Amino acid sequence: MFRLTGLALALLLVGATGLALLSQTGAAADDPANVIKYRKQVMVANASHITAVFSVVKGETSYAGHIAAHARAIADGAAMMPDIFPAGTGDGDTGALPSIWQDWAKFEAAASALQSAAANLADAAGSGDMAAIAAAAGAVGKACGGCHEPFRKKK
Amino acid sequence: MFRLTGLALALLLVGATGLALLSQTGAAADDPANVIKYRKQVMVANASHITAVFSVVKGETSYAGHIAAHARAIADGAAMMPDIFPAGTGDGDTGALPSIWQDWAKFEAAASALQSAAANLADAAGSGDMAAIAAAAGAVGKACGGCHEPFRKKK
Repeated sequence: MFRLTGLALALLLVGATGLALLSQTGAAADDPANVIKYRKQVMVANASHITAVFSVVKGETSYAGHIAAHARAIADGAAMMPDIFPAGTGDGDTGALPSIWQDWAKFEAAASALQSAAANLADAAGSGDMAAIAAAAGAVGKACGGCHEPFRKKK
Repeated sequence: MFRLTGLALALLLVGATGLALLSQTGAAADDPANVIKYRKQVMVANASHITAVFSVVKGETSYAGHIAAHARAIADGAAMMPDIFPAGTGDGDTGALPSIWQDWAKFEAAASALQSAAANLADAAGSGDMAAIAAAAGAVGKACGGCHEPFRKKK
């Protein structure tokens, strides 16, 4: 049977709090304006990658061999989302809505959904089955919207 | 000892020519305007990824943990370069110079240099050594310029 003494439990709690503070410090150290600039680069990169994928899916270009790489880049960008929206970066030159921090769990879930959809697209690209690729690409587009709709200012 | 009969050699040559034609057909089938749009997405993605890296290298943000992913995306984008500049896509809404196709070997070498530099950056990012990361990021920036300088119209 596994039992924690009061002291061990206290040390664990102190340790966890220390880690949380460290992580918070890392984010808080950056000027919000610089964080906003950085995350726009990540967003533009993701938009470029999915636009390139749709160029192939719509038959405008025949670069099916590139789709897996674009999908991996999108998945990596999706994994960055929770990092690049630290608390305190909702003001200034940003389309981010306060709902991100009011409903952080939902925001994280939406970012995670994009990551999964992009990973599925990378897998589908490996299969070479264009119908499966198109469906997986559509799911990535939907996952983009699944975050923009509740969490981004209307343009 | 390995010897080819005249017939086997002829068949090999026909096969190789067939593959070359297939590959040429793949590129030629795409509307040049669509190829140009596609490659601009690849270029914008690469520019966003390296700009994000420099945000960290310059100390504006502390996303060192993202650099390897950005570097991999750049390396993948670099590997696409020879594909996305097929012959016949030098006119229209493009900054591509005719020198690309006049000196294709040099162009391919420049794209390959970017791919290597980006792969080195991904390796450096894994080391966590910020001086090495900054040097490797600088080399990626130089490799971008190494292609833009001879092969892109001045802005």
